[in-house]
Amino acid sequence: MDLNVVSRIRQEAFYNSQVMQTFTHLTEEIGPRLTNSPNMQKANDYAKSKFNEWGLSNVKDVPFEDFGRGWDFRSAHVEMIAPRAFPLHALPKAWTPGTNGPIEGEAMAVTLKSAEDFKKYQGKLKGKILFLSELRAYKPGTEPDQRRYDDAGLAALQSFAVPKTMTSDRAKRIKDFRDREKFTRELNKFLVDEGVLATVSISGWDNGIIRVGGAGSRRAGESVGVPDLAMIAEHYNQVMRMLDHKDVVRIRADIEARFTSDSNDPGYNTLAELPGTSKADEIVMLGAHMDSWHTGTGANDNAAGTAVMMEAMRILKSIGVKPKRTIRVALWGGEEQGLIGSADYVSKTFASYPLSTKPEDADLPKSLRPRTGAMQRKPAYDKFSVYFNMDNGSGKFRGIYAQENLAAMPIFQEWLKPFNDLGATTVVSRNTGSTDHISFDRVGLPGFQFVQDGLDYFTNVHHSHLDTVDHASEEDLKHNAAMVAAFVYAAAMRDERMPRKAVIEE
Amino acid sequence: MDLNVVSRIRQEAFYNSQVMQTFTHLTEEIGPRLTNSPNMQKANDYAKSKFNEWGLSNVKDVPFEDFGRGWDFRSAHVEMIAPRAFPLHALPKAWTPGTNGPIEGEAMAVTLKSAEDFKKYQGKLKGKILFLSELRAYKPGTEPDQRRYDDAGLAALQSFAVPKTMTSDRAKRIKDFRDREKFTRELNKFLVDEGVLATVSISGWDNGIIRVGGAGSRRAGESVGVPDLAMIAEHYNQVMRMLDHKDVVRIRADIEARFTSDSNDPGYNTLAELPGTSKADEIVMLGAHMDSWHTGTGANDNAAGTAVMMEAMRILKSIGVKPKRTIRVALWGGEEQGLIGSADYVSKTFASYPLSTKPEDADLPKSLRPRTGAMQRKPAYDKFSVYFNMDNGSGKFRGIYAQENLAAMPIFQEWLKPFNDLGATTVVSRNTGSTDHISFDRVGLPGFQFVQDGLDYFTNVHHSHLDTVDHASEEDLKHNAAMVAAFVYAAAMRDERMPRKAVIEE
Repeated sequence: MDLNVVSRIRQEAFYNSQVMQTFTHLTEEIGPRLTNSPNMQKANDYAKSKFNEWGLSNVKDVPFEDFGRGWDFRSAHVEMIAPRAFPLHALPKAWTPGTNGPIEGEAMAVTLKSAEDFKKYQGKLKGKILFLSELRAYKPGTEPDQRRYDDAGLAALQSFAVPKTMTSDRAKRIKDFRDREKFTRELNKFLVDEGVLATVSISGWDNGIIRVGGAGSRRAGESVGVPDLAMIAEHYNQVMRMLDHKDVVRIRADIEARFTSDSNDPGYNTLAELPGTSKADEIVMLGAHMDSWHTGTGANDNAAGTAVMMEAMRILKSIGVKPKRTIRVALWGGEEQGLIGSADYVSKTFASYPLSTKPEDADLPKSLRPRTGAMQRKPAYDKFSVYFNMDNGSGKFRGIYAQENLAAMPIFQEWLKPFNDLGATTVVSRNTGSTDHISFDRVGLPGFQFVQDGLDYFTNVHHSHLDTVDHASEEDLKHNAAMVAAFVYAAAMRDERMPRKAVIEE
Repeated sequence: MDLNVVSRIRQEAFYNSQVMQTFTHLTEEIGPRLTNSPNMQKANDYAKSKFNEWGLSNVKDVPFEDFGRGWDFRSAHVEMIAPRAFPLHALPKAWTPGTNGPIEGEAMAVTLKSAEDFKKYQGKLKGKILFLSELRAYKPGTEPDQRRYDDAGLAALQSFAVPKTMTSDRAKRIKDFRDREKFTRELNKFLVDEGVLATVSISGWDNGIIRVGGAGSRRAGESVGVPDLAMIAEHYNQVMRMLDHKDVVRIRADIEARFTSDSNDPGYNTLAELPGTSKADEIVMLGAHMDSWHTGTGANDNAAGTAVMMEAMRILKSIGVKPKRTIRVALWGGEEQGLIGSADYVSKTFASYPLSTKPEDADLPKSLRPRTGAMQRKPAYDKFSVYFNMDNGSGKFRGIYAQENLAAMPIFQEWLKPFNDLGATTVVSRNTGSTDHISFDRVGLPGFQFVQDGLDYFTNVHHSHLDTVDHASEEDLKHNAAMVAAFVYAAAMRDERMPRKAVIEE
C-alpha cells in the first residue's frame, strides 16, 4: 500500500470533491433512471461526457440483451370523490399503462390470486377500481430509522454460520417462473377483458411511504394490463374499512405514464478505463448500477454508488497515478430487474455456461435456462483480478465483506489501515448478495461489496418515493469515493491478482 | 371507590365496547373536522344523535364566540412540469383559497419576512409560485417512532422543577400579536396585488410527512391571500436545489378548496349529561376537543379523545349507575385555534375576567384583551368539582398529571388502584398544558389530563396527513374509556368535591 498515493487520494476526495455535483446531476437534473427510460439514456450520456471530460479511455456504452421497452411517468393524481372527497397518495408501478385522461369508478375490494378467482368475478368488474391487497395493520416503529454501526455491531458481523444445505431444484424454479408468468399474462388479459379501470395495492411500508416497483410488462407484444397503483397504507386501509362498512367509495385517477418504445430494445452499461502500464491486459474493475426505480430520484439506490465509482475514477485520473493493471469502471443497467446488465457483461466478457437453445426454453430468462455444459472461460477470465461494487444505500464504508474468500482477508485488512482513522476497520468473511458483484462471484471471479452504515435505507428509502438526495450524506460519499479509489489502485498495483475461491457449480 | 362498579365499567368497556365504531365514524365516515367546516357540523350532529340514542340528558350544541368562516378542501394536485415532470406531494393550509382550476407558473425562492422585503420584490412576482421557506437539511431519526413508558420513564415524571420566574408582559404580547396580524394582512395584500399564483412552504417534518395547520384568514372581510401549500421536505428541498442550480422550474397546481360561509359564525361545543341524584346541582365534567386539522382524519388529534369520552358516558349510562353529582360531557370546538370553545364555555358558565370594551381593544382575542377587574365567579363555580380531558394522542393512560394540586394526588392514587393491573400506576405532581383542561385550570377549577403512552404521536401523526385510524390502538382506547368512566364516577360519588389549588391571577 503506497501511503503517498493514499494521502493524495484522500486529499483529492476530501478537499476537491465533485461527488455531490455528480450525485445531484444524476438525481435532480436527470431524475430517476428506470432501465431503458429516456432518463437512463441521459444518464449514460452524462456519464460518458464526464468520463471523457476527465480524460478516461475507452469510454463507451455496451449493450446488453434485449431488455424490453422504455417507460416513464409524469404525474399521478388520485383522489376519493365520494362519499367524501380527499386526496389519495398513490403512484403507478413501472411498465403499467397510464389512464389516458381522468377516470372515475367505484372502488371494490377483490382477491385475484389464481385463475379460479377469475370465475368468481367474471362480469362484475366493469368500470371498477380494484383494491387487490388485504388491509394491513400498522406496524409501530420500535427501532430508530437511522442506523450506524457501533463497535458491537461491527463485531457481530465477524461470526459466520455454516450454510444450510440448499437443494437447488431448477425444475421447480422453472415451473414456478412459468406459473407466475402465465398467471400474470392471464390476469392482465382478464383485467382488460373485464373492463377494469385500474388496480391498486398497498405500499409495502407504513407512514405514508410509497414503496413500489414494476408490474404490467416491459416486453413488447405482451399485455400491460390496466393502470396499476401503489397507495400509502394510511389511505389504502381507509378505503378498505369504508368498503367493509358498505360505503360506496368513488375514486378519480389521472395517471400520465407512457411506454417510450414499442420494441425489445437492448439496455446499456456505460464503461470507461484508466489504462494500465506494465500489466495493461489485466483488469481491476469497479462499478455500481446506474438504473433505478421511478418514484424517487434513485438517489441512494443507486446514484450514490454510481457517483462514488465515477468520483473514484476522477480522483485516480486527477492525481495522475499510472496503475500497472487497467482500471475499468462499469455503470450497470437492468440491476433492479435481476442484475441483467452486469450478468450479460460478465457472460460475454469473462465466463458463461452454454444454455439450452431449444425453442421450448426460449421463454426462460438466462438465469433459469437449462445449462448444457460446464462453465466456459474466455481469455479475459484469467486476466481478471477483482471487482468492487457499491449498492447498499449511501452510508459510509466501515469495512468489507470478503465473500468467503479467506485469502483476500489479510489483503483487505492491510488496505483498510489508512482508513481506520475514518472508522473503516472491519473485514468480515461473510457474504453479501443481491447486487452486481454476484454476477462476478457466481462464475468464480472475485467480486466484493463494502460493509456500509445502513442510515435509513431499509426504513424509509429503498425503492420508495423518498429515495432522494436529502437522505444521503455528503461526508459518507466522499469517504466512500476515497476508499474505493485506494482499493482499486492497490489492486491494480499489487504483484499478484486477487486470490480466487472455488467456483461452486450448480 | 366502589369496586363492584369498576368491575362493571371494565367489563362493559372491554367486552361490549363501541369505542372503535365511534372513533371510525368520526374519522372515516365524517372525515377531518376543522372548526366550522361542514364536517364539524356533521360531528356535532352525530355526537348528539349518539348521546340521545344512549339515553343521556340535556343533549345540545352550545355556541361559542364568533369564530369565523368555515372552510374545507377536496383535492390537491401539484406537480413539476419542467425541467422534468414528477408529482409533488403538497396540501393546502386551512383557510387559504383554492386555485379555481389548474394554475401554472415558475417557482421562485424568496424571503418575505418583513414589510421591507416587499420592496425588493415589487413588480417581480407576477405569475410566480413562491417558495417561502429555506431548504432544511434532513434530520436523521435516531429514536424509535413509537414510544411507550417503561418503569424508568414513569419514574422520571415524578420529579418536579421549581418553575422559573415568568414575567408576563401583557403589553409586549399585545404588541407582538398586533405586529404579526398587521404583517399577515400586508403580506396577503402584497401577494394578491403582485399577482402571485401561490406560495409554498416546507412541511415541518421529514420523511414525506405533510404537517400543516392554517394560514390565510378565517375572519370574514379579511384578505385570505393566495393559495398556500405545505410540501414534503423531500420535494421542497429538491425544488430549492434546482432553483439554486439556475434551473427554470415550472409547477402546475390544482387545489379545490372553498370557504363554506361568508360570515363570522359561532362555533359549537356539544354537551350532554348523566343527571345526578342527591347532589344533582354539582358538576363533574369530562371532555375532549372534537375539532381537528384538515389533512388526515383528525384521528389521534382528537377523535380518539372524543370517542373515549363518548364511550365513557355510554358505559356509565349502560351499566345503570346513579351518580350523586351530575356528569357532563363536553366535546369542544376551536381547540386548534387556541382552546376557543372550552375557554368561552368556562367563562360563560363558571368564571371570567371583565375585559376592556374600548374600541381600540376590539381587535384583540379575549385571551389578550386587557382585564379591567378581578375574576368574577358565577354561581356554578362553587358547584363544580372536576374536569378530565384527553388530548395527547390515542396512547394508553398510564397515570395522571395532578397539575400541582397536591391534595388531589392521594385521591387519584386510590382511584388508579383498580387499573394498576393494566399498567396505569402513576400520579405525578407536574403540569401538562396546551389543551382544554387549561381553560378550567386558569380560573382555579380542577382540570386534569392523564399520562399517556406517546406512541408515534409526535413523530408521525400530530397535525399531519398521517393522523389516521391506523396509528391508534383499539386496546388503548378501550382502556382509556374504562379509566375515565371510573374516574368521573368516583368523582361524582365522593363526599367532597375535588380539592382546589389557589387561582394564580396575572
